[in-house]
Amino acid sequence: MNLKGRHFITTQDFTAPELEFLLARAREFKHTKPSHKPLEGKAVALAFLNPSMRTRLSMELAVQRLGGTPMTLNVGGDSWSLEHRDGVEMNENRTEHVKDAVRVLGRYVSAIGVRAFARMENPEEDLADAVIMSFKKHSPVPVVNLESAMHHPCQSLADVMTLVEKRGGVRGLKVTITWAPHPKQLPTAVTNSFLLAATQFGCDVTLVHPEQFPLPGRALEAAGRNAAASGGHIRVMHSQPEAFLGAQVVYAKSWGSLAFYGEWEKEKEIRRNYTNWIVDERKMRDTNDALFMHCLPVRRNVEVADNVLDGRRNLAYDQAENRLWVQMAILEALIK
Amino acid sequence: MNLKGRHFITTQDFTAPELEFLLARAREFKHTKPSHKPLEGKAVALAFLNPSMRTRLSMELAVQRLGGTPMTLNVGGDSWSLEHRDGVEMNENRTEHVKDAVRVLGRYVSAIGVRAFARMENPEEDLADAVIMSFKKHSPVPVVNLESAMHHPCQSLADVMTLVEKRGGVRGLKVTITWAPHPKQLPTAVTNSFLLAATQFGCDVTLVHPEQFPLPGRALEAAGRNAAASGGHIRVMHSQPEAFLGAQVVYAKSWGSLAFYGEWEKEKEIRRNYTNWIVDERKMRDTNDALFMHCLPVRRNVEVADNVLDGRRNLAYDQAENRLWVQMAILEALIK
Amino acid sequence: MNLKGRHFITTQDFTAPELEFLLARAREFKHTKPSHKPLEGKAVALAFLNPSMRTRLSMELAVQRLGGTPMTLNVGGDSWSLEHRDGVEMNENRTEHVKDAVRVLGRYVSAIGVRAFARMENPEEDLADAVIMSFKKHSPVPVVNLESAMHHPCQSLADVMTLVEKRGGVRGLKVTITWAPHPKQLPTAVTNSFLLAATQFGCDVTLVHPEQFPLPGRALEAAGRNAAASGGHIRVMHSQPEAFLGAQVVYAKSWGSLAFYGEWEKEKEIRRNYTNWIVDERKMRDTNDALFMHCLPVRRNVEVADNVLDGRRNLAYDQAENRLWVQMAILEALIK
Repeated sequence: MNLKGRHFITTQDFTAPELEFLLARAREFKHTKPSHKPLEGKAVALAFLNPSMRTRLSMELAVQRLGGTPMTLNVGGDSWSLEHRDGVEMNENRTEHVKDAVRVLGRYVSAIGVRAFARMENPEEDLADAVIMSFKKHSPVPVVNLESAMHHPCQSLADVMTLVEKRGGVRGLKVTITWAPHPKQLPTAVTNSFLLAATQFGCDVTLVHPEQFPLPGRALEAAGRNAAASGGHIRVMHSQPEAFLGAQVVYAKSWGSLAFYGEWEKEKEIRRNYTNWIVDERKMRDTNDALFMHCLPVRRNVEVADNVLDGRRNLAYDQAENRLWVQMAILEALIK
Repeated sequence: MNLKGRHFITTQDFTAPELEFLLARAREFKHTKPSHKPLEGKAVALAFLNPSMRTRLSMELAVQRLGGTPMTLNVGGDSWSLEHRDGVEMNENRTEHVKDAVRVLGRYVSAIGVRAFARMENPEEDLADAVIMSFKKHSPVPVVNLESAMHHPCQSLADVMTLVEKRGGVRGLKVTITWAPHPKQLPTAVTNSFLLAATQFGCDVTLVHPEQFPLPGRALEAAGRNAAASGGHIRVMHSQPEAFLGAQVVYAKSWGSLAFYGEWEKEKEIRRNYTNWIVDERKMRDTNDALFMHCLPVRRNVEVADNVLDGRRNLAYDQAENRLWVQMAILEALIK
Repeated sequence: MNLKGRHFITTQDFTAPELEFLLARAREFKHTKPSHKPLEGKAVALAFLNPSMRTRLSMELAVQRLGGTPMTLNVGGDSWSLEHRDGVEMNENRTEHVKDAVRVLGRYVSAIGVRAFARMENPEEDLADAVIMSFKKHSPVPVVNLESAMHHPCQSLADVMTLVEKRGGVRGLKVTITWAPHPKQLPTAVTNSFLLAATQFGCDVTLVHPEQFPLPGRALEAAGRNAAASGGHIRVMHSQPEAFLGAQVVYAKSWGSLAFYGEWEKEKEIRRNYTNWIVDERKMRDTNDALFMHCLPVRRNVEVADNVLDGRRNLAYDQAENRLWVQMAILEALIK
């Protein structure tokens, strides 16, 4: 299966067999630790427009284990700040255009990983995933999405890998994705991506959140199409107790209300009404002995109680580890 | 001698023979440059909650010379900020718990180096060395202290190595540790650690500081017990000229007054009264042709005069170099 | 040709044959990708007092391709801030003296790359290139200038390499260096260095800028001496249309007015009068089918129009790529 030269922006750009191929390769890396070095003499740029711990370390390690050289850039920190809009007069604070940055990077490296969170300032920009799309449009080498405004596909592929490890397979698996409380309004990328990947792989997905915290319409629509094609299901509800009944997996994630985009003070007031959406051991007891998932970092005793995170159900550390193996598979597959 | 899997938080956790073993190995690394690569295929995380130059470079080099991959994290900068208190509701600014960070790191790396200075806000937290202790408590892999609130054991081991190089041995060596002026209130970690290591190795130690600048009681008590066990001595005085008489080594270090903890404006006023505690060539002439030591960075012409730092007595650059060799010995010894 | 142990602060410190030797070696690295590893087991420190993208990546790659280990320091960020003046009482904010930093670095690494932009606060300090000169003065290992207040010699050597590639040679080549508009007052280092290198290599140089934006006198004088020695030419004019007539190369660069040093608000008012100095395709049509050069980062549609940057004339990406190859040649040549 040849994926050379492709960008990895969302799992939606890949067919189920292509994703299965990547997962199979990730398992091989994890269990056989092959010694071949497909990135020997090659470098990969990792451009972080936002902070990172897991993603940076797992990507640096992935590149290194494949024999390559990771080159991390903290954009806007020790590097330049980036403009992504085409045709503008660059008279403000942003010092370099994505177009020029990627054309230069393309002379040095064989792929570019990019982290560019939703800025939470301009809904059109966030929904269009404008920054990562600018990288994709202009880059002469493959772009790997390390969390954009709308997607976090390396995370969701690692999530699926983790579920396959624990349950043998994911087709028909009853997965509940629950909104969780948090002191800050967070982007929807992780939830969008897990929703998409889980439905691509045929899971029976329940999404539960307070009515005022809907996900972007296009993510839900794509998940619906995925489920129709894969034989999976997707339903949305607003009662957490109901959504936990019978769940075999609970995936917790917080996000800010798109209904109050830009009015973040007001949104915060509303968010505060739902602190009782915390996932704790008592709620987990109402599930079908569900496994617990979280992408980390997690706000302990706000999003999730210590008794869940420190208990036997918690897969968060396996998810984090599997980031490494799926990213090795992705880099090996894309880089020429 | 098997030290595999141990944490390296303070030299107090190690016996004199264990420390001698590490020093012997450090000398071998320095002089024979062995080519074996005990960390081949392994990574070491270096988490810096505070700035660093010597420590970061010497640790990165130490890992690399052993064949491993150093992974540096600037916590709170390009990575997440860390909560170390167990059981709290993480509703404030800190984005990740040490517990989760180290459990994830443990999936990627074979050891974790941590720099976590005294925050100088909460005396109980600092005296308990709470941040590094949280790493130690939760980490599944060895933790190496790269300066915590109370200890800087890699520094003090390099200090002892340097003295052994210059004087053949340190037993009975007359070492004066002197408080020095500085524009800022600094932590006591370097002094505590040198005091402990010097007494573990049987030095005849004189500690001199203005009365209002005592060290933490438990460091002094431990040093006293060390001296009793090793045949060394420890005395405390407040007259710098008296303490310099007969000294074979002068170790200069500044620290803030624990007596005015939290009242740093007031403390600053008091500290200003002691600018004449600067170490200069004239004072050094009253010693027994003493060598001069400093951990760096140094405030020239405030802590120490140019004529000492640029002169033949100054061992500071040797101390810095020896950080590399002792850290190679420590990593090799701890990592499974 | 033996350049071992020399510093690389400006091309002026090197003879034409020495620079030709470096360029020849850079071309060999680019086209034959030799596998020998002259920096095996060696490290190079890269100290950035200012942000960087191209320079950092190309230096890290250069060190790595030569078999060495790059050690990047963001000075003042995750490392200490540096004092460069000799003899001062270090009672203010700067935490370490360059003297001590380089003496320590010299124990760890085989060369030190330094980026230290003009601070634009003190004209004497900037004109004297005080920070990089302090590194040069005190460093026990070669210092490579990665852009100082007055010079950016790795850039100008890459620029000459690019012109030789595209035109076969540069002797007598009609090169116009034009001032360009910019929202900020920038240093003159890139222009100074290109002016010096171009005249060392015998180019026929026209420098054009608004009357109020002269370059430092000593750069112009040195360029004049270079031209006299190399058989090149250097003329200064203030009419952009006149300067573009017959040009075979247009090199655009912005800089702040030294005539209003320290009065940056006033200078900004003046700078705003020259926004029509933007380089666009219409102006390029009046040249002798000139190639276009820029060191990047570039403010699109302020300094240079999209139609030039996205067109066939633009050499900026080749210039950026050639940074890598000339820096490999420089490091190989200097490091013992």
